[in-house]
Amino acid sequence: MNHYPASIQQLIRSLSKFPGIGTKTAERLAMHILRAPRRDVEKLAHRIMEVKEKTRLCRLCFALSDGELCRLCSDPARDRSMICVVEQPADMVSIEKSGGWNGLYHILQGALSPIDGIGPEALRIKELMGRISAEEIKEIVLATGTSTEGESTASFLAQRLRNYSVKVSRIASGVPMGGDLKYIDQVTIRKAMDRRHGM
Amino acid sequence: MNHYPASIQQLIRSLSKFPGIGTKTAERLAMHILRAPRRDVEKLAHRIMEVKEKTRLCRLCFALSDGELCRLCSDPARDRSMICVVEQPADMVSIEKSGGWNGLYHILQGALSPIDGIGPEALRIKELMGRISAEEIKEIVLATGTSTEGESTASFLAQRLRNYSVKVSRIASGVPMGGDLKYIDQVTIRKAMDRRHGM
Repeated sequence: MNHYPASIQQLIRSLSKFPGIGTKTAERLAMHILRAPRRDVEKLAHRIMEVKEKTRLCRLCFALSDGELCRLCSDPARDRSMICVVEQPADMVSIEKSGGWNGLYHILQGALSPIDGIGPEALRIKELMGRISAEEIKEIVLATGTSTEGESTASFLAQRLRNYSVKVSRIASGVPMGGDLKYIDQVTIRKAMDRRHGM
Repeated sequence: MNHYPASIQQLIRSLSKFPGIGTKTAERLAMHILRAPRRDVEKLAHRIMEVKEKTRLCRLCFALSDGELCRLCSDPARDRSMICVVEQPADMVSIEKSGGWNGLYHILQGALSPIDGIGPEALRIKELMGRISAEEIKEIVLATGTSTEGESTASFLAQRLRNYSVKVSRIASGVPMGGDLKYIDQVTIRKAMDRRHGM
């Protein structure tokens, strides 16, 4: 890397801080920036700053938003009595892409992880409870991940929600669709067997 | 992707123009930019622009450079009588990393490719001939790639250089070091057999 001029070395160093981007890929990206038309590069630098300046979290659900309320929270077509709780904005985007949900969301901004010092107060749990108290919520779907952290966050929330008159459910886990059973891990298979249902 | 606010969608679109970066990776990079400290993001945007503004090509060898002459061309410890000819700046960096060369370089900025409309006049060939005429060059090592384009560029240059009193050589090709013969392609094996040498 120290065979490049200083400004290129610095760019490579910045780029290799991205998750999943090693020095080799960072070098390739830097070479692309050097070759790309000046206008495209200016646009990219501008958009990086713009995203940082414009994006904030929705006052209600903590989704990424350009305004005070996100697009979904201000959409009158969504069912406001149902909240789907997820860890990260990207999880919400996955569920939206699936088209399987017409309610609102609540983005916790992470999952409980005592080992990393992430307790309930670090997540948007208080705000979730606030929404349930203030609005007429009928159902909460816990759609945190199926990792240890995601599962224990779901358990924690289910426990807390017992005091509220709201239906609490958890997204189903099992063999993914299109999945070949011989390639699925044992924990998933076991879960899928335990949760088998009549048909 | 249209489930993100507009500014994030635009950033994802810009990022997915990079070679080897699909929409999924671009999304992940955009999320990282959102989460990263503001100072780091400003630094990145600044460095992207800086690289574009500061980097130019060395007046002599056409390597990437911060100044008029690159670091190597202005290094008195390098042997100025030997020039290694490569296609791209990254090729020069690979050879420098290997530590196997103490001469200067000449970066053609590509290889001959009639199918893409890249003829000799699109490369820095005239400038290479100029260097050979103007300076006391003893040896030219043709280190263009071993692709069809790289090979034909090397042949073309070797032909042209016959009129000059300079030794012309080509980097060796064969089985890469640490290479397991059963994984090496047939063209390479054949070349390695043809070029076998006594020991």
